[in-house]
Amino acid sequence: MKDRMKALVYHGEGRISLEDQPVPRILEERDVIVRVTRSTICTSDLHIIRGAVPKAVPGIVLGHEFVGEVVETGAGVRSLRLGDRVAANCETFCGECWFCKRGYINNCVRGGWKLGCEIDGCQAEYVRVPYGDMGLTRLSDEVGYEQALFVGDILSSGYFGAELAEIRAGDTVAVIGAGPVGLCAAECARLMGAGTVIMVDVNQERLELAKAQGLADLCLNPERDQVKDAVAAVTEGRGADGVIEAAGGGDTFRLAWEIARPNAVVAVVAMYEESQVLPLPDMYGKNLIFKTGGVDARRCKKLVELIAAGRLNTDFLITHRGSLKEILEGYRIFEEHRDGCMKWVVVGAPEAVCKKEKCAKR
Amino acid sequence: MKDRMKALVYHGEGRISLEDQPVPRILEERDVIVRVTRSTICTSDLHIIRGAVPKAVPGIVLGHEFVGEVVETGAGVRSLRLGDRVAANCETFCGECWFCKRGYINNCVRGGWKLGCEIDGCQAEYVRVPYGDMGLTRLSDEVGYEQALFVGDILSSGYFGAELAEIRAGDTVAVIGAGPVGLCAAECARLMGAGTVIMVDVNQERLELAKAQGLADLCLNPERDQVKDAVAAVTEGRGADGVIEAAGGGDTFRLAWEIARPNAVVAVVAMYEESQVLPLPDMYGKNLIFKTGGVDARRCKKLVELIAAGRLNTDFLITHRGSLKEILEGYRIFEEHRDGCMKWVVVGAPEAVCKKEKCAKR
Amino acid sequence: MKDRMKALVYHGEGRISLEDQPVPRILEERDVIVRVTRSTICTSDLHIIRGAVPKAVPGIVLGHEFVGEVVETGAGVRSLRLGDRVAANCETFCGECWFCKRGYINNCVRGGWKLGCEIDGCQAEYVRVPYGDMGLTRLSDEVGYEQALFVGDILSSGYFGAELAEIRAGDTVAVIGAGPVGLCAAECARLMGAGTVIMVDVNQERLELAKAQGLADLCLNPERDQVKDAVAAVTEGRGADGVIEAAGGGDTFRLAWEIARPNAVVAVVAMYEESQVLPLPDMYGKNLIFKTGGVDARRCKKLVELIAAGRLNTDFLITHRGSLKEILEGYRIFEEHRDGCMKWVVVGAPEAVCKKEKCAKR
Amino acid sequence: MKDRMKALVYHGEGRISLEDQPVPRILEERDVIVRVTRSTICTSDLHIIRGAVPKAVPGIVLGHEFVGEVVETGAGVRSLRLGDRVAANCETFCGECWFCKRGYINNCVRGGWKLGCEIDGCQAEYVRVPYGDMGLTRLSDEVGYEQALFVGDILSSGYFGAELAEIRAGDTVAVIGAGPVGLCAAECARLMGAGTVIMVDVNQERLELAKAQGLADLCLNPERDQVKDAVAAVTEGRGADGVIEAAGGGDTFRLAWEIARPNAVVAVVAMYEESQVLPLPDMYGKNLIFKTGGVDARRCKKLVELIAAGRLNTDFLITHRGSLKEILEGYRIFEEHRDGCMKWVVVGAPEAVCKKEKCAKR
Repeated sequence: MKDRMKALVYHGEGRISLEDQPVPRILEERDVIVRVTRSTICTSDLHIIRGAVPKAVPGIVLGHEFVGEVVETGAGVRSLRLGDRVAANCETFCGECWFCKRGYINNCVRGGWKLGCEIDGCQAEYVRVPYGDMGLTRLSDEVGYEQALFVGDILSSGYFGAELAEIRAGDTVAVIGAGPVGLCAAECARLMGAGTVIMVDVNQERLELAKAQGLADLCLNPERDQVKDAVAAVTEGRGADGVIEAAGGGDTFRLAWEIARPNAVVAVVAMYEESQVLPLPDMYGKNLIFKTGGVDARRCKKLVELIAAGRLNTDFLITHRGSLKEILEGYRIFEEHRDGCMKWVVVGAPEAVCKKEKCAKR
Repeated sequence: MKDRMKALVYHGEGRISLEDQPVPRILEERDVIVRVTRSTICTSDLHIIRGAVPKAVPGIVLGHEFVGEVVETGAGVRSLRLGDRVAANCETFCGECWFCKRGYINNCVRGGWKLGCEIDGCQAEYVRVPYGDMGLTRLSDEVGYEQALFVGDILSSGYFGAELAEIRAGDTVAVIGAGPVGLCAAECARLMGAGTVIMVDVNQERLELAKAQGLADLCLNPERDQVKDAVAAVTEGRGADGVIEAAGGGDTFRLAWEIARPNAVVAVVAMYEESQVLPLPDMYGKNLIFKTGGVDARRCKKLVELIAAGRLNTDFLITHRGSLKEILEGYRIFEEHRDGCMKWVVVGAPEAVCKKEKCAKR
Repeated sequence: MKDRMKALVYHGEGRISLEDQPVPRILEERDVIVRVTRSTICTSDLHIIRGAVPKAVPGIVLGHEFVGEVVETGAGVRSLRLGDRVAANCETFCGECWFCKRGYINNCVRGGWKLGCEIDGCQAEYVRVPYGDMGLTRLSDEVGYEQALFVGDILSSGYFGAELAEIRAGDTVAVIGAGPVGLCAAECARLMGAGTVIMVDVNQERLELAKAQGLADLCLNPERDQVKDAVAAVTEGRGADGVIEAAGGGDTFRLAWEIARPNAVVAVVAMYEESQVLPLPDMYGKNLIFKTGGVDARRCKKLVELIAAGRLNTDFLITHRGSLKEILEGYRIFEEHRDGCMKWVVVGAPEAVCKKEKCAKR
Repeated sequence: MKDRMKALVYHGEGRISLEDQPVPRILEERDVIVRVTRSTICTSDLHIIRGAVPKAVPGIVLGHEFVGEVVETGAGVRSLRLGDRVAANCETFCGECWFCKRGYINNCVRGGWKLGCEIDGCQAEYVRVPYGDMGLTRLSDEVGYEQALFVGDILSSGYFGAELAEIRAGDTVAVIGAGPVGLCAAECARLMGAGTVIMVDVNQERLELAKAQGLADLCLNPERDQVKDAVAAVTEGRGADGVIEAAGGGDTFRLAWEIARPNAVVAVVAMYEESQVLPLPDMYGKNLIFKTGGVDARRCKKLVELIAAGRLNTDFLITHRGSLKEILEGYRIFEEHRDGCMKWVVVGAPEAVCKKEKCAKR
């Protein structure tokens, strides 16, 4: 393992640069050092750069969505070995505190969104992962790195959204936002037996992708369609049984509860930059349930197994690839949705990738 | 049965009067006519009089919380007989529509809050109850009328609040609002095994009642106490496991989610007159669940059984009684919380009450 | 409507005959008369003929799995009209008793398995259905009769089995018995997100059908495979997350719990002719859950919607068709699984079928 | 800490003796050594001595139900400190394996019933507890040792039984067996809101204790009462909503399902020495759920909190006390239920007990 590496560093609002940095070392006994084989850019990276995440620490390496190979483990690491291929949970958790013991790992008192926010992240050649036993999921041989790239962040978010919305077989599910998380949510809702999936977005291109991928039965564009009426038309006038809000736009929260039927769950997985209005007098008696939640990556092992079994597939989200050297351009393409960009993926140094890999899938 | 009766009539914002009215008759085959033995005034009656319930129809008889005796049944009534002593659900439901079949009776397409709002209510000597088989619960002999008076409205609301909040044995539960619904909610939370019940109100007298009734382990007054700190102090810093908002005040919604621990349920059973702010950026990652719901009176039979078994008791809520002739004064006392008024109860004509009753309990 | 019809009559153990019978008439106000457009033979019909159903009444018309057209309604029928195309629940329920109100419709105190067992059933030209509003589900125009034929019995049983087994996305589910109910259960488990479906049967032909239909990832034949080892091999040694026992054979109950992982649910939907052994000392600490349940047809509307949405499809179960006149031969073919018979379907009189039908699907 | 101690050693079927043994030492880094301040005898100790637990290892110290003080911790212990007062889970678990991560700690691949069965237990002055961070629950100052003595075994079993039986407010719950576990189950069922608790036992003295402690509304003795009829009489003929089988007698399993209403849960927490018959044909259509489970001690922290809050109290179970030297006599008294013995408690050496304790409660 070398001493220096390239990494994308955040220097406060609006400023990022690709720099030479020391390769991270084990600091705590439960740490694991991972060589990053694939990483990607997330909308929340853009939130940081726009200054909308106050807790983000200038000077840290960005990035929290990645897969890679274990190259060093602390003395307290019990389940991982050198050479293990792993998917990473974007949030760090200890597994032992009050919240972790009850499954609320995202409220771990020692963890949360640390990587690429409060400590160095993965848009680099190597990354240090605290509590590696908890946050890293071993990949079986038949699962390629790119197949598992989204497991620990957007696929977890989408799955969590579908879980929050309590999707049951036959339900009509509306997903607001056909971006990466929304598409994952639609796929997970379908996995759980949704009868009809309605996708809502103002980006017609993304709606068409959803349709082409078989993720939506009905696509609605608020700029062209009467969304509320259209949802009513396919639900005998009642509204959607479950709504997953994955857009976080100016009026998408309002839309979410308006198209929900009485007693529905509205799962809010988008990250908002503004407060919303909750018009309780207007919705009195509608008995709506609002569940707020960001990513929840408790299910990584299950998601990897579903990918291995062919029940989930996120490959279509990878529209662009580049090397770490090209990541600044990647940010621009991703932010502008240029060329239909859904996800811009950093491909790690090729020479090292294939040591342990024998299967043809990646 | 006589032809004319006294009834309290609503004549538009700010105007009510006690008048002579015809006794109601069967209009539909599932109707039941009930002689009102006890009725009471509800905060939502005040909402109507203040003009805050647009759907309220001028000219109707007010009132929706009552018990009584069945005196006439339509041809389609299957389970009730003349002389049956019954508690009434404050909401009307058909039992057959899509919502009713799934247990969402408050969203019945033919029902909802009708009595004392859109059709004549119970602050009268007699009342017509649509879909009587559904909305009337027969009282067994050992349950007195006053014991069951609140079953169909405030006790159902409190029970629903505790159910929404998913109270589990050992939970720390905060109830905001020590009025009739809040006290019922606290009692139901305790019934479901709450470890610690925290009652919050600005009315010290009501807090003391809660304490005296054994319904609260900790009473907090936002005008005197640091509520958030006090809740943290008894929860190892986490916040309440469940919060039931039964106040509907200017800042009680905000307080509700602030004192909830991450991943808690905030059950909003209060009726609000104003929209609230939902500051999603501030609560990002806290993964809160908000459940909005008014009364849900599906559980009336269970509540009557719990009262019969001595597990629930709402007698202490009856602080004042009077005859129907005195009801205008009753409204004033109730609205002003005068003399510690919690519930002002209309006692029906005595000569008729005791025909079928043999037990000493009422 | 004519006066006389053909019907298959049960005359006690071992004796059935096709006879001339009066067309049924409305007896109770909630009755509906249905012209049978498709019916089929169920294994429980064979149980009756073998004398294994003591409550079966000699002299009744057999059959309880059918679809048809409403031709007459009693005065108390509220939701159905002449000409409605309907699927029938094989069990009768009132919708109003203690059990019905709580969703346990199969324990309705006025209902249960009546049709073709205690009262005349559907292997006839017409059938009287008590509580028609409850037990008949209207078919939308896009759903053909044959598509919906199994909704009220075997598809409901399979769906109920998957529900009982608490299938969650990613689970490994074992289904014992690849007959009609088992195949439906596998399809429903897949609908609910099962990761791996394991089908177990001694009939290799049926296993191959399951495989060909995409309903099973792994097929095991106890006569050729070490079932327990094979299940362990695909579950990291733990056993299946959920087991659906749809065979009811001599040792299938034992097999069911042996291949379940600790804390799994074993859903027993088969109809057994013998008591089973529950070796509690051997399974101490395994914390298994056994759920016994026959058909539960609460979900008929949902199942029809899932068929309309293309999410469920049972057409492949129809391997044989004939007219009512040929039904005795049909029984022989069905009982012996002759020619790969899965379901032998009675096609109702053609001249009447297509009056109201316009869509091409059936 | 001294080097030698007294301990009760099991030497194979029928043979136990109080012997001089070395004080246990840390063997693994997650071990904790506890000085036993109170321990007690459990029915499963009797099972071992009778030879009914094949996995029990001759030569080990018996006992698995105890509280004490932490006197030594391994290098990998994170949450406990010397002097901590703790209640012990009778089962050992690692907290990290597939089962532990999903809450099925009793199926921990590295744990289970080890203490006093496969490794040295607590009927001694000191005991080594593997994975001490997981299996030991710290006691707050206001909870005395005797108050918490049953938390890790019989109270957990009773609580688990009530959880398995899915007790909801208002339910009628039947508990079979008024021994220590049954009484705990009744108390927990009441905590969860049971409307009516029915206790069934052949030991009239124990039934009377249940009644006197307010744990049962109705006591039934199968030798004197028609149990099935009596349960029907208080449930409108339906049967109990939930049944907890805590007896494990020859016909108590049969009784359990016979008195359950259709769709009830029968929680089987007793340890059986014989297989039972499951007469599936007789119970067809009754849709019963059987949940088998021994102790599940995930809830220890919650139980300690409920004791601290005064919501649970097991002090009345302690009918006898003695020193470790008297334990052989204690076994005889406990086994024979002599002098109304419910629990015979070993009081640890007094000189050491009170160092850290200041509260008067113990």
